[in-house]
Amino acid sequence: MAKKYLNPHIKRHKAPKLSIDELYTGIKNRDIRVLSQAITLIESDKDEDQRKASDLLFKLGPSSINSRRIGITGSPGVGKSSFIEAYAMQFPNKSFAILAIDPSSGSTGGSILGDKTRMKDLTSRKNVFIRPSPAGKTLGGIAAKTKEVMLLCEHAGFDEILIETVGVGQSETKVSQMVDLMMLLILPGSGDEIQGIKRGIVELADLVVITKDEPKNETNVKFSTKAYRNALHLLKPKYDGWTIPVVSTSIFNNESFATPAQQVDSFYDFLQQNDFKKRLRHSQDLRWYDQRINDSILQKFTQIEAFNEIIERTRKEIKEQNISVISAIRKTQDWITDRIQL
Amino acid sequence: MAKKYLNPHIKRHKAPKLSIDELYTGIKNRDIRVLSQAITLIESDKDEDQRKASDLLFKLGPSSINSRRIGITGSPGVGKSSFIEAYAMQFPNKSFAILAIDPSSGSTGGSILGDKTRMKDLTSRKNVFIRPSPAGKTLGGIAAKTKEVMLLCEHAGFDEILIETVGVGQSETKVSQMVDLMMLLILPGSGDEIQGIKRGIVELADLVVITKDEPKNETNVKFSTKAYRNALHLLKPKYDGWTIPVVSTSIFNNESFATPAQQVDSFYDFLQQNDFKKRLRHSQDLRWYDQRINDSILQKFTQIEAFNEIIERTRKEIKEQNISVISAIRKTQDWITDRIQL
Repeated sequence: MAKKYLNPHIKRHKAPKLSIDELYTGIKNRDIRVLSQAITLIESDKDEDQRKASDLLFKLGPSSINSRRIGITGSPGVGKSSFIEAYAMQFPNKSFAILAIDPSSGSTGGSILGDKTRMKDLTSRKNVFIRPSPAGKTLGGIAAKTKEVMLLCEHAGFDEILIETVGVGQSETKVSQMVDLMMLLILPGSGDEIQGIKRGIVELADLVVITKDEPKNETNVKFSTKAYRNALHLLKPKYDGWTIPVVSTSIFNNESFATPAQQVDSFYDFLQQNDFKKRLRHSQDLRWYDQRINDSILQKFTQIEAFNEIIERTRKEIKEQNISVISAIRKTQDWITDRIQL
Repeated sequence: MAKKYLNPHIKRHKAPKLSIDELYTGIKNRDIRVLSQAITLIESDKDEDQRKASDLLFKLGPSSINSRRIGITGSPGVGKSSFIEAYAMQFPNKSFAILAIDPSSGSTGGSILGDKTRMKDLTSRKNVFIRPSPAGKTLGGIAAKTKEVMLLCEHAGFDEILIETVGVGQSETKVSQMVDLMMLLILPGSGDEIQGIKRGIVELADLVVITKDEPKNETNVKFSTKAYRNALHLLKPKYDGWTIPVVSTSIFNNESFATPAQQVDSFYDFLQQNDFKKRLRHSQDLRWYDQRINDSILQKFTQIEAFNEIIERTRKEIKEQNISVISAIRKTQDWITDRIQL
């Protein structure tokens, strides 16, 4: 079902434009075709689409706090797609929305979208929706849009939203700011530990999973498990009362996926205590609000024709060395000041 | 000479406030006391100080294109301070400004400032100025201010500006956007390669230096050199015509530092061809301009009392769940629109 819409470009030009009401009803009925179209609307940079997306989100209102928002990260090759598939296949009656953030830039190339076609067992399930998120122009932009796509999926009644990132860039921090739980996947082996112990990413984890726990990797798995437990021990805990578990899985042993699943449950139990989940989501909402407001302010200016003109003219003057950058900055700042009513 | 001013807090409160003219003259005469005070002014977040800093930069005008701007990065423990010291000690008649960006946050702790006190031979030189850059509130903020501190140092006539970062965060990208050459320092050994091959940082390098090239590390040095040459070979070149050199040094062998120094010269020769250096600095200037304009727009709004009030009130409403985030965003966006004269 979902597979058909893996490539948003296929449908985008053919689908008739739906009204807000149609989008609303379709999402509430978990109509994948409509959900896909709504996501395309959210992801659009066109003014008109943005207004419509905002109207839609406004009509949808706050989404349920009962969903689970889980971030899954790890270096390329660690087996994220296999992990997600095996994890989700344990719960045939649960519905999953799987969003993949693809930060592939021109220079590094590559794409994780290809990966998705490997999730064969999942794509045949009607209660699973898989959607790659195209890279936005700005990291803030990606984050704001992924957040809103996640909200749409929650309104469509998905129980768990899994957000996958490739663990090589800065998107992990942004994703960790919109999920309840961050899972870090690690390849067993001495080399990879050191790669993993890049601060930043390890510090975001609530749960660490060593993949490829197979007989031939036994020593490496033991070593990595111990190394990560030690390393995490050195970090200031994210939450008092939650010791970050380090567990291992193998795709050749389906039962091994019960362990991370149990740890996810334990973590949610832990979050429920002290109202942590509610507090987490509140602070995430505030961050989303702040980000959106900053984006809006900057965007408003780019909609002023005279502003674009002065920026273009000044950039040209800088290029031609007719003005120093400092003079250019001051001149533009004065112009901006005149345009804002205090 | 410089050592006395290592800790900006010592001097900040005692020094009499200098006028723009006094700052200008002091900087042009490379008076370290005045330069330090000017940097403190640049780094200040106070409105009044920012205006004064801008006036100073305006009066100073564009700095010389003849300076060298070099970024030096590498994981903690790789020996950045030792490298910088041995590198600079080769050129007793060259003047160096060494700026260290310290991204230490509350959660990770640690500081590279302590390191600086180890540069004993350098701190006794009159033509060397060492200054840590405190972490700003935003990454953009750090970058903009480091850029301006660098300009002050250029006006003070320093031949080479070395900007040191610890290689664990996002500051490397920002630094690479303000220097001519990025040098990546790597510890020899199989584990570290893998750490180094985090994309992003390796991709920024114009020159790779394996440190601790001592007899006991011979195998590891060979291995790392080969591994990095191979890895860099796989990356799309930053410049056609510049193959990124991988060289090695040891602090027990002063002559070994001639090799990276020669490579730096070769790179500058290369940049001079095709006018690459000028083009690089122009595009960096344009980026600085764009960043500063965005910052200014956002800052202008935070200076509007009514804006701060609406933000505070709305955030409170979100916290108390009296309003959905989407409604909050729209309401605030409408308010913003009213304040900007189209």
